[in-house]
Amino acid sequence: MFIHPTAIVEENVEIGENTRIWHFAHVRRNAKIGYSCVIGKGVYVDEGVRIGNRVKIQNFVSVYKGVTIEDDVFIGPHATFTNDKYPRAFGDRELVETLVKRGASIGANSTIVCGVTIGEYAMIAAGAVVTKDVPPFALVMGVPGKIRGFVCKRGHPMSVKEEFEDRILYRCERCDEELLVPKGIVPKRENN
Amino acid sequence: MFIHPTAIVEENVEIGENTRIWHFAHVRRNAKIGYSCVIGKGVYVDEGVRIGNRVKIQNFVSVYKGVTIEDDVFIGPHATFTNDKYPRAFGDRELVETLVKRGASIGANSTIVCGVTIGEYAMIAAGAVVTKDVPPFALVMGVPGKIRGFVCKRGHPMSVKEEFEDRILYRCERCDEELLVPKGIVPKRENN
Amino acid sequence: MFIHPTAIVEENVEIGENTRIWHFAHVRRNAKIGYSCVIGKGVYVDEGVRIGNRVKIQNFVSVYKGVTIEDDVFIGPHATFTNDKYPRAFGDRELVETLVKRGASIGANSTIVCGVTIGEYAMIAAGAVVTKDVPPFALVMGVPGKIRGFVCKRGHPMSVKEEFEDRILYRCERCDEELLVPKGIVPKRENN
Repeated sequence: MFIHPTAIVEENVEIGENTRIWHFAHVRRNAKIGYSCVIGKGVYVDEGVRIGNRVKIQNFVSVYKGVTIEDDVFIGPHATFTNDKYPRAFGDRELVETLVKRGASIGANSTIVCGVTIGEYAMIAAGAVVTKDVPPFALVMGVPGKIRGFVCKRGHPMSVKEEFEDRILYRCERCDEELLVPKGIVPKRENN
Repeated sequence: MFIHPTAIVEENVEIGENTRIWHFAHVRRNAKIGYSCVIGKGVYVDEGVRIGNRVKIQNFVSVYKGVTIEDDVFIGPHATFTNDKYPRAFGDRELVETLVKRGASIGANSTIVCGVTIGEYAMIAAGAVVTKDVPPFALVMGVPGKIRGFVCKRGHPMSVKEEFEDRILYRCERCDEELLVPKGIVPKRENN
Repeated sequence: MFIHPTAIVEENVEIGENTRIWHFAHVRRNAKIGYSCVIGKGVYVDEGVRIGNRVKIQNFVSVYKGVTIEDDVFIGPHATFTNDKYPRAFGDRELVETLVKRGASIGANSTIVCGVTIGEYAMIAAGAVVTKDVPPFALVMGVPGKIRGFVCKRGHPMSVKEEFEDRILYRCERCDEELLVPKGIVPKRENN
């Protein structure tokens, strides 16, 4: 385990073996970070956040209270989470939770609006704003984020190989990986 | 008043009672911050910026010279302001001002392009890019930001209750708050 | 040359005369930064990055390994680069390079997806996500970024002055600067 001298780690934090916490990062009390993670420059991990194993979080990401991140997740630079649907400087706040499932990737500068679940191995493109649940392996792009296709486990965009009555078979040409998806998940481009 | 030891506050800064300035924040000379504010991790407050009372500024926000922020404003994490319409690394710069009025909220990762006024209690959605003035209570989303409706004082989206000849009555179902708005402010979806 | 005491500059870094490196910035080994540059608050310059002369990089920008920035480039606050097309927390990574040519400007909170070349004096608008090469002097906006016109050397949007059979003449009304551009570069609005 390595914590850079400029990083701030509060009391009662659990950090797994081989995890590195870099310059000017801040991990708040009661957070739990698994083993073999990388917590990049300036990253903010709020109170009580749970982060799995082998998670890579790039520069300046903010992970707020109420967010749970499973194993093998990638979070690109400058991405942020939120935990308040109707943010105001005044009045009572209602904390809304967010879940990022195993193996998902969240692109640079994207925003994950609270209340969603991002499925296993989903891929959120750079600059996207996620406002709805994301199915496993789905590729989400844009503002607001829309499903634009599916990716393989290694993150490559897959192409449509065959259409059945109510499902579509996607295939990664590089990995030979295949995925069967119910029809109607990817919205038609014209309707967006 | 509390200033974290890692924060940097330059000379001739005014900071009100009960305001907290957090880790690695930087407040430049001649800035004025009111009372009961929260200035989050890494936030940058430029020379001469005016910030009202009870303002909450989340992690990594940059508030540049020429920006004025009134009371009770919320600014979400990673949002940024600008102060130059045609930024270049060379030549003369012309500073352009921006005003955020009382009670407005600015979403996570949004960008406020200089020269605009954001009206009282307006709500800028996460990831939006604001390039035009925003009327009071308006909800602005997208890149570029467009008015998509109106919110109540507490920030909930309102629904259309009644349409009159030249005005529309909006109503918050949770707060019973009502708002009368001239027709034509919310652009038709098809024209965007 | 000035390096703020809170900035971190690793070994074997070359920094030109009159360059200023501000609070909490981090410049990694083997990076090379030219003369008369400004490296803003919190900026991250990765290993081996090459930055030209008179470059201005605003707060919290991340410039990753594989990125080259030529002279006179402006990079707005919170912009980020990437260097991985299919980011995952696991598996082998393939570094993809990016080039920003002389005089270009990159707007606040924009994202430059790796693998692109941004042409001389191009202007990337605030919040844009660049996923394709950008021609010289082009103005790119939106998510994903699209060419919306052209700017003059000082950054002002130009207007169409004359259309020829296969080229369009743009002109800046403020600077009298003219630019001849092949037809078909700016996509029709309806098709976007």
